[in-house]
Amino acid sequence: MNGAEALCGALLDGGIDVCFANPGTSEMHFVAALDRRPEMRCILGLAEGVVTAAADGYARMAGRPAAALLHLGPGLANGLANLHNARRARSPMVVVVGDHATWHVAADAPLTTDIEGLARPMSDHVTRLAPGESVAAGARRALEAARATPGIATLILPADVAWGPETAAAVAGPAPARRGFDAAAVAAVAVALADARRAGRRAGLLLAGDALRGAALADAARIAAATGARLLSEMFNARVERGAGRPAAPKVPYPVDVATGFLADLDLVVLVGARPPAGFFGYPGKPSFLARPDCMIVRLAEGTDDLPAALAALADAVDASATIPAGPDAPLPPDPADGRLDADAIAAVVARALPEGAVLVEEALTAGAPLYAATAGAAPHDLLQLTGGAIGIGIPLAAGAAVGAPGRKVVSMQADGSGMYTVQGLWTQAREGLDVVTVILSNRAYAILYGEMRGVGVAEIGRNARRMFDLDGPPLDWVALARGMGVPGIRCDDVAGFRRAFAAAVAEPGPFLIEAVL
Amino acid sequence: MNGAEALCGALLDGGIDVCFANPGTSEMHFVAALDRRPEMRCILGLAEGVVTAAADGYARMAGRPAAALLHLGPGLANGLANLHNARRARSPMVVVVGDHATWHVAADAPLTTDIEGLARPMSDHVTRLAPGESVAAGARRALEAARATPGIATLILPADVAWGPETAAAVAGPAPARRGFDAAAVAAVAVALADARRAGRRAGLLLAGDALRGAALADAARIAAATGARLLSEMFNARVERGAGRPAAPKVPYPVDVATGFLADLDLVVLVGARPPAGFFGYPGKPSFLARPDCMIVRLAEGTDDLPAALAALADAVDASATIPAGPDAPLPPDPADGRLDADAIAAVVARALPEGAVLVEEALTAGAPLYAATAGAAPHDLLQLTGGAIGIGIPLAAGAAVGAPGRKVVSMQADGSGMYTVQGLWTQAREGLDVVTVILSNRAYAILYGEMRGVGVAEIGRNARRMFDLDGPPLDWVALARGMGVPGIRCDDVAGFRRAFAAAVAEPGPFLIEAVL
Repeated sequence: MNGAEALCGALLDGGIDVCFANPGTSEMHFVAALDRRPEMRCILGLAEGVVTAAADGYARMAGRPAAALLHLGPGLANGLANLHNARRARSPMVVVVGDHATWHVAADAPLTTDIEGLARPMSDHVTRLAPGESVAAGARRALEAARATPGIATLILPADVAWGPETAAAVAGPAPARRGFDAAAVAAVAVALADARRAGRRAGLLLAGDALRGAALADAARIAAATGARLLSEMFNARVERGAGRPAAPKVPYPVDVATGFLADLDLVVLVGARPPAGFFGYPGKPSFLARPDCMIVRLAEGTDDLPAALAALADAVDASATIPAGPDAPLPPDPADGRLDADAIAAVVARALPEGAVLVEEALTAGAPLYAATAGAAPHDLLQLTGGAIGIGIPLAAGAAVGAPGRKVVSMQADGSGMYTVQGLWTQAREGLDVVTVILSNRAYAILYGEMRGVGVAEIGRNARRMFDLDGPPLDWVALARGMGVPGIRCDDVAGFRRAFAAAVAEPGPFLIEAVL
Repeated sequence: MNGAEALCGALLDGGIDVCFANPGTSEMHFVAALDRRPEMRCILGLAEGVVTAAADGYARMAGRPAAALLHLGPGLANGLANLHNARRARSPMVVVVGDHATWHVAADAPLTTDIEGLARPMSDHVTRLAPGESVAAGARRALEAARATPGIATLILPADVAWGPETAAAVAGPAPARRGFDAAAVAAVAVALADARRAGRRAGLLLAGDALRGAALADAARIAAATGARLLSEMFNARVERGAGRPAAPKVPYPVDVATGFLADLDLVVLVGARPPAGFFGYPGKPSFLARPDCMIVRLAEGTDDLPAALAALADAVDASATIPAGPDAPLPPDPADGRLDADAIAAVVARALPEGAVLVEEALTAGAPLYAATAGAAPHDLLQLTGGAIGIGIPLAAGAAVGAPGRKVVSMQADGSGMYTVQGLWTQAREGLDVVTVILSNRAYAILYGEMRGVGVAEIGRNARRMFDLDGPPLDWVALARGMGVPGIRCDDVAGFRRAFAAAVAEPGPFLIEAVL
């Protein structure tokens, strides 16, 4: 058995049976090993940002890591932005990066780079395998690290380690770190919530990570009912269970002034895996932190902790009722009047027609602003957001989510500017026959930047700025782009057409793309 | 004046008047500053790999740096692979990366990353500006560093430095480092060449960088004629002047066995800005270094030295004749017979119809193998290659070359697999009306990997490998992709059609795309 075969076996033994990949020459022995193990599903992305975002989407929905296979430093570099998003989503992932044979590094061949240096800023763990080490043991260590954090474990595999013999006897790795929680923090939070209620002070539970779904979300709702606390969530979340009948935990809004207003009534914020609420950017004369300066902030659990267990313990500590309170009765938006499309109409149509159990991927940015409120009362669904702010995640995130949640319709609401970053992901959707409906909100601009220019006090926009903000001249033809990659599509610019197209698209297996011209 | 305005002014004062860009919120003040200086040409790329490759192509042709404007760590990360190629090409570039306001970093907002950590592996110089420092002075330092190396100078611009006042009085920067050369090395090489000739030992001048064009290439040819040395060049070069009547310096071939044969007659290799010839990858049982083990390797000059001056000095030292020897009489390939297209026919058609003064961008990889020999006798042109091995450079490199060499036809020979990495560059070609003819060599596979699998001893290719090597199922429709980004195009699968399409495309101003189906 060579090292590559040992790696493949260790991944399969560890429960990884999907490998998103864009391999090159230095990975050929690993490819040959994958080729002998057909139980590993290999999914090609035509750019590495597709590979890492798809692995993220898979992990968010499947609840377990995939492997991502990348080619040397430049291949890793191309995947880093979406590794950053995945890391902020706390998605477990094992990233295998091939490298030159150890003895070839001295030749300073063109593709020689500092792979560790590139990996570290976007990885939770980095391991470089060396000749004579057990590759299987290294792979198990990486897998355990990815699961325990959870996060990104990058494994650098020199070519001669891949083709060399798997020498060392299988080393028993350390037992996977169990994610726990701090019981003292639970007790302290229970006291703080009781004190606040007694003093008439308003409390909020700021939820993140897997506190936003399943039993954990129900426990949070029980705690809120018992203590009078509000539920809220971070500005961007990896996966939220939302929709009719479910407890609502509204997200912290993006604009600083709106966000400070949203948090203004809170005297106490309990962090449940969340960071203290902060602005997405810093602006002149505006604060970084969004809660009132005199708001008390206490931490129930860290993002790496077992949030469901911490919430269950807190529910006990506050003597929460066993009854899960019914979610707020959020109305569906009214059916929009016919006429030209706008972001509100798109949001209303999507919210009304979203199939139960859908996975809603949202990278719609400015054009998607109404979508969040509109879908509060939609059929129960999972919402996947852009966690790290690195635009260019939606199309491949949707692909990976479809792989990780077979049988569920994925609806991908995608801004045009950010969609272009990883447009290549449409081909993977076609290749794998994934059940994804992509809606391009085509406003033909980096529209957010017009707002940001006003935000920094610039009132007049001139030619140079327009040349950097506008995507017209020529306009992108998304139907042609999709067809070029094997995804059928249609363009709409009025409400009736979009309503018809979206209904048809969710009724048929995908992939399909709708260019909604705003 | 704020910091952003000071930066913009310093770049313009330093001779940078083109800024390839994909900005975001943290760069808004710099965008506002650019907006007030219309003499700076701002060119948008819809993905950052487009931005950095275009700046590289511009620098190769214009002979001076452009600026590249990127958004925070993820924006930089997306541009790193082509920064790696640019660095290997020794293209000067000033990369401006915006960052959060310094006081906002503590908030750990979603886009917070270790920008220096990401920049270092692909930069020659990294500077982070801080409040209270002169931005103009920092910009001048970066520009001088980019020119002196030449290479990549990355300037990290926190938002509050951009919007804060330009405080410090303009600091006189150090005088730009003059690129020089080592006169002792020139004398030693002259002796080594004379000794070799006297002993009947074969010598070669291995040229790189700007030794491959203009007076430097002519001097190298004069030295070769005077000393009996062969001219040769590195496997991949930033820019080579080739074609009928010009001195030929054949590149070191890619396959290890072919390369060792190519170098087997050489007893002495003189490095003129080149690295000792090495294989692109290391393979089991094959050497890293390609010259005969007993071949003597001496260095005339480092890659950072003034190669033209070093060659001029060596020409004097060897008493080279003032007459520049005529280039070898490389015949044009015969006009190919009609029938189905193949790589040889494409190479022949392109070589025969290449306009004089064209810029030939080559990322055709396997399908482009015959092109190099075929164009040896083509009309005089400049050849731009993939210098760092990070695929996905061709389409935006061609765009940047067209900006840097107005009035010259750019012909971009592009493999389909690598073309998809930065396919977004077609939009920039359309937006800027660039005179580029792109030929997609569409073999619907990462064909090189089939060869590499054989190279590592795998004879049978199974489903998993095919799923990672093949780009069919669905095939890419490049004409639709191009149309989607505003570039007209045509598909050809026979020789007559390609001959007609290519002749028409080079006769008309671009951009235009030809999908040549193999």
